[in-house]
Amino acid sequence: MTEILPSYVNGEWWTPDAAAATSAVEVRDASTGDVVARVSTEGLDLGAALEYARTVGQRSLGELTFHQRAVLLKQMALALTERKAELYELSSRTGATKQDSWVDIDGGLGVLFTYSGKGRRELPNAKVYVDGNVESLSKDGSFLGRHIYSRLPGVAVQINAFNFPVWGSLEKFAPAFLAGVPTLVKPATPTGYLAEAFVRILVESGLLPEGSLQLVSGSVPDLFDHLRLGDLVAFTGSASTAERLRAHDSVQTGGVRFTSETDSINASVLGADAVPGTPEFDAYVKQLVVEMTSKAGQKCTAIRRAVVPAASVDAVIDAVRARIQERVVLGDPRVEGVTMGPLASVAQRDEVLRQVGKLEAAGGELVIGSMDAPSVMRADGEAADVSDGAFVAPMLLRFTDASSPALHEVEAFGPVASIVGYDTVDDAVRLVARGGGSLVTSVATHDPEVAVALAGGIAAYNGRVLFLDRDDARSSTGHGSPLPSLVHGGPGRAGGGEELGGIRAVLHHMQRTAVQGSPEMLTALTGVWHTGAASQPGGVHPFRKSLAELRIGDQVVSKSRTVTLEDIETFANFTGDTFYAHMDEEAAAANPFFPGRVAHGYLLVSWAAGLFVDAAPGPVLANYGLENLRFITPVSPGDSIRVELTAKEISPRETDEYGEVRWDAVLKNQDDAIVATYDVLTLVAKELAPAAV
Amino acid sequence: MTEILPSYVNGEWWTPDAAAATSAVEVRDASTGDVVARVSTEGLDLGAALEYARTVGQRSLGELTFHQRAVLLKQMALALTERKAELYELSSRTGATKQDSWVDIDGGLGVLFTYSGKGRRELPNAKVYVDGNVESLSKDGSFLGRHIYSRLPGVAVQINAFNFPVWGSLEKFAPAFLAGVPTLVKPATPTGYLAEAFVRILVESGLLPEGSLQLVSGSVPDLFDHLRLGDLVAFTGSASTAERLRAHDSVQTGGVRFTSETDSINASVLGADAVPGTPEFDAYVKQLVVEMTSKAGQKCTAIRRAVVPAASVDAVIDAVRARIQERVVLGDPRVEGVTMGPLASVAQRDEVLRQVGKLEAAGGELVIGSMDAPSVMRADGEAADVSDGAFVAPMLLRFTDASSPALHEVEAFGPVASIVGYDTVDDAVRLVARGGGSLVTSVATHDPEVAVALAGGIAAYNGRVLFLDRDDARSSTGHGSPLPSLVHGGPGRAGGGEELGGIRAVLHHMQRTAVQGSPEMLTALTGVWHTGAASQPGGVHPFRKSLAELRIGDQVVSKSRTVTLEDIETFANFTGDTFYAHMDEEAAAANPFFPGRVAHGYLLVSWAAGLFVDAAPGPVLANYGLENLRFITPVSPGDSIRVELTAKEISPRETDEYGEVRWDAVLKNQDDAIVATYDVLTLVAKELAPAAV
Repeated sequence: MTEILPSYVNGEWWTPDAAAATSAVEVRDASTGDVVARVSTEGLDLGAALEYARTVGQRSLGELTFHQRAVLLKQMALALTERKAELYELSSRTGATKQDSWVDIDGGLGVLFTYSGKGRRELPNAKVYVDGNVESLSKDGSFLGRHIYSRLPGVAVQINAFNFPVWGSLEKFAPAFLAGVPTLVKPATPTGYLAEAFVRILVESGLLPEGSLQLVSGSVPDLFDHLRLGDLVAFTGSASTAERLRAHDSVQTGGVRFTSETDSINASVLGADAVPGTPEFDAYVKQLVVEMTSKAGQKCTAIRRAVVPAASVDAVIDAVRARIQERVVLGDPRVEGVTMGPLASVAQRDEVLRQVGKLEAAGGELVIGSMDAPSVMRADGEAADVSDGAFVAPMLLRFTDASSPALHEVEAFGPVASIVGYDTVDDAVRLVARGGGSLVTSVATHDPEVAVALAGGIAAYNGRVLFLDRDDARSSTGHGSPLPSLVHGGPGRAGGGEELGGIRAVLHHMQRTAVQGSPEMLTALTGVWHTGAASQPGGVHPFRKSLAELRIGDQVVSKSRTVTLEDIETFANFTGDTFYAHMDEEAAAANPFFPGRVAHGYLLVSWAAGLFVDAAPGPVLANYGLENLRFITPVSPGDSIRVELTAKEISPRETDEYGEVRWDAVLKNQDDAIVATYDVLTLVAKELAPAAV
Repeated sequence: MTEILPSYVNGEWWTPDAAAATSAVEVRDASTGDVVARVSTEGLDLGAALEYARTVGQRSLGELTFHQRAVLLKQMALALTERKAELYELSSRTGATKQDSWVDIDGGLGVLFTYSGKGRRELPNAKVYVDGNVESLSKDGSFLGRHIYSRLPGVAVQINAFNFPVWGSLEKFAPAFLAGVPTLVKPATPTGYLAEAFVRILVESGLLPEGSLQLVSGSVPDLFDHLRLGDLVAFTGSASTAERLRAHDSVQTGGVRFTSETDSINASVLGADAVPGTPEFDAYVKQLVVEMTSKAGQKCTAIRRAVVPAASVDAVIDAVRARIQERVVLGDPRVEGVTMGPLASVAQRDEVLRQVGKLEAAGGELVIGSMDAPSVMRADGEAADVSDGAFVAPMLLRFTDASSPALHEVEAFGPVASIVGYDTVDDAVRLVARGGGSLVTSVATHDPEVAVALAGGIAAYNGRVLFLDRDDARSSTGHGSPLPSLVHGGPGRAGGGEELGGIRAVLHHMQRTAVQGSPEMLTALTGVWHTGAASQPGGVHPFRKSLAELRIGDQVVSKSRTVTLEDIETFANFTGDTFYAHMDEEAAAANPFFPGRVAHGYLLVSWAAGLFVDAAPGPVLANYGLENLRFITPVSPGDSIRVELTAKEISPRETDEYGEVRWDAVLKNQDDAIVATYDVLTLVAKELAPAAV
């Protein structure tokens, strides 16, 4: 008998007792019907696993900074890449073609790589994330406000759908891990063996901090009874299951965060300008066929409603039919030449056919495909009918009544879409909105005015909107592809949640808190120096300190330097910047912001560098940029300026011998008025080079 | 008989038929028991009012930009300020002292002023808000991603608590209005007459765009049946009511956004360093007494749990008792010298006493105050017992068993707090967390290490954490004061929502959507020029165009200029910036980032200004700043540079004769490699001055 698929909990692999496992569920190959695995959680102590995450997992992840976690994500991606072949082989058993598997497996690895990169580029090398600007709460600067994000103190429970066992897990795991919140993942039973495989590779890699990832292979009926404030659940699946889970007390009153991404009745709109013969028409048809057939249409993001100008409905149907005939070869995905596999299970096949029946009953006319068992390529290479595989042919239903509720509400989670005509842009907007909230809508148009008019109406009903035209048709990542850098999720029917979106998803695993206090306290709490906090002027010039020696608040206060009219003219002549405010007393005085001729802003920041720099070779390697420069008070000839430069934020890199140091620069004049403020960005060595010591 | 308090719906004032109003609720003066108003919504067509908001209100607000709405908010604040006396007079009938009224009325006006300012400073003068950076989605730059926020297409229903009828309404209205979402406000019945008064002033001011604000005075039992996707509800009140409302289908499956802020069992922690005699100890006691007595303790944010080192419990109790005796005068708030008024109603008084009874039964020992009717100052100036006013004396309960559930779960919504001792920082963290999520915790400590240790444990359980010490005790805005610039709300018991927080609250009224498309399309959708979109080089120099003439994409492409070693030395000598990378060939070459001596970054941006500037007086008034400067490729002697400057974002000001123009600056070398990128920020006149034409 096939072994029971193990779970990975409390730091070890676990399977039910053989005796207790009589009730195990059999999981079958989507094409052949062979048993692949058996699944059961009988006897699993879920409460203990969750508590292990909250204690051991929280502790081990809490020892790492964002950057350290990000480095681990990359190492995990590399470990999985090395053993990708194992995953592809298993993936074909789920009915996935090589292309489908690429989306799932390489797509999942891509999420890890992206989060690793973004984590290091867009998060500090710290444990707390600072959000937004300082808020001044008192006139004297002694009381400030700021927002910080701290990780949630519980466990991230991730409940995934059957269609993307690898990507679906990793796209939730990566941001949770980066946030420092341990994961307990519960894959869908029909494809859970593929999730088990990647978790096994990660466990064997030795890269997982203790308790940071647990896997439950099988059902978890009492899961929500064990959850509490500080935990969060990210659910992908059907709207009805989401509804049931969300209603649990732990979510309703217990403070458990619940995010759901549910399959939605996504639309794709053909712009009125995109008539047959335009590149947009062709791109639209091509995308529609891809969305109907890729993963056999088993994607939450697939196009379910083709919304096209009434005059183009027939042309679109004809073009889609032709392209399907030309391109789509249905069969066992292990067979060369097959471009579309079966659904994940015969249960799914039966469910899809049932939903197509509903669409037909509601007025949908089946204009492409049929409900009959299709002819498919079997593993022996022969075309034949198969009843033990979960095959369904691509189907397109035409609705003449655009107001039919079923068109906008019934989802056949397979290679099935509906097509409906519209008259005006407002009609199209109303039809998209009838979906009740979607993950994504795409629009094929080359007319920016059409794009703006549609976006104004539909954006609020969608988590993502893709604009397809001749300029991006070749480079577009496609209607159905969530990307790690963009939010995935949508309002209403789509679940109301948000995943991905780069760092946004990391923050969904954290609590935003306003903190108020003195500059000194906010400096301590954020690791970022705040104006008014203690500084250390004098002593060794901070440019002579490596990252090992430099401290927040280390400061250089320069001597002052007087600006003369001659300096201004010299600078103007050298740079060519002879703007009248610097060169023409009368014209400058007529300007509402200047008292007369003033020094160039660029002169001031250039001089400031001359005033604060320590010129000799040392740990400061480069000034790689500057941010938030504001000129506050103009500098007239005869005024003098000085600069205060204070180490504000220190971010050593994990994988380089240097790191970033952000300096707070304030230029003041002889009256202590602030002339300019900005941040100077430098690269500084971690240690003094032997030569520089 | 007292008139029935009108509602303001569908653009007009509405009251029930006299006959239908027999069931009206009587509202009484909190001190005297006199009837102030009668309240009923019998016969009100709530569905029509909501639809009026979704149509008329959406349309009128949709015609305005963020800045135009922001200007209106300021004008509304001024209109209310002019008639503030009327509001103060009514406010005293709710039991509010002058200080309490100031918090409610001037606090509410402050929210309008703050949102008006932030709206203009931190939002574009546009209708869509762009979130985060461009995401590059293709190697050739033809396909990009970005996030935009669009306003929700429905109505913002605001259900308020009785304690802050003005502030509570305005803090929800201001961000909704700024987002462009019409409001329907439903005040709490006991103090709804004060909300009616400020709405009346706003209506009479003529400032309200049609349908942008409606008022329902009275109960709305079937409200949620009328709500749908695109609407949102912001609720303030009890956790149990929030729970009941949240469970409605329109929220659970209908896609209605629901935010709740519920009274929570907020803690205030005295640091172990803040022993008696320290300024922090005194500040802690002072703040605790303020929070117990201000608004007679009827604040969601009030301190309910004083968490103090075990050794200091007695000292805190003694100090609180002394301060109450010295400072607190209970009575009719219209009487001179009264510092604490009654609760809002006798029903509230009875409820508070019932909860105090629960706390006592759970082991709380009443160490300050009593359940007896207190002696109070009446309107005739005599101290006497009153049974027709809703008076309660300040009460402090001591718990010796810190694990008592009631201590952390029972709220007496009046001048009541509990005190409990702790031993270690970990104990204190656990006690704070036992509140199950709070709006705010305050911490009195002067030790940054204590602050960091506590914050690490408690931040995730709080929406706001305030640190009190000798440096900010005088300037602190106080534990119990939500501020418009900081988020208000908290996880778990506190409702799980977020309000305020400056622009964050505006965005809560909008949908975030990822948009994907060509640079041209993203430019059209966002109003911000994207690299790769069409530009208009040549022709009139864009610095010669006023805002009336300038268009996104207007561009100047400069000639090139070659950098010589002499230039570098000239610049170094002029600025004093003799950093070795510019001056010492050997040392520069040893630096990991430079091929040898290179030009100063400041030289490059100064020259770039010389290359792109048009020097004569004209519409460009000033370069007020620079952002996001990054140096990409070093420039060696012999290299040449040129600059492309493109108008990226144009924001005319509503109330000035000029506006901001952001320019995209790209420096390239002779090989077309990018040397530097940045944004140049300028002020540009709306029209050409006659002299400059």
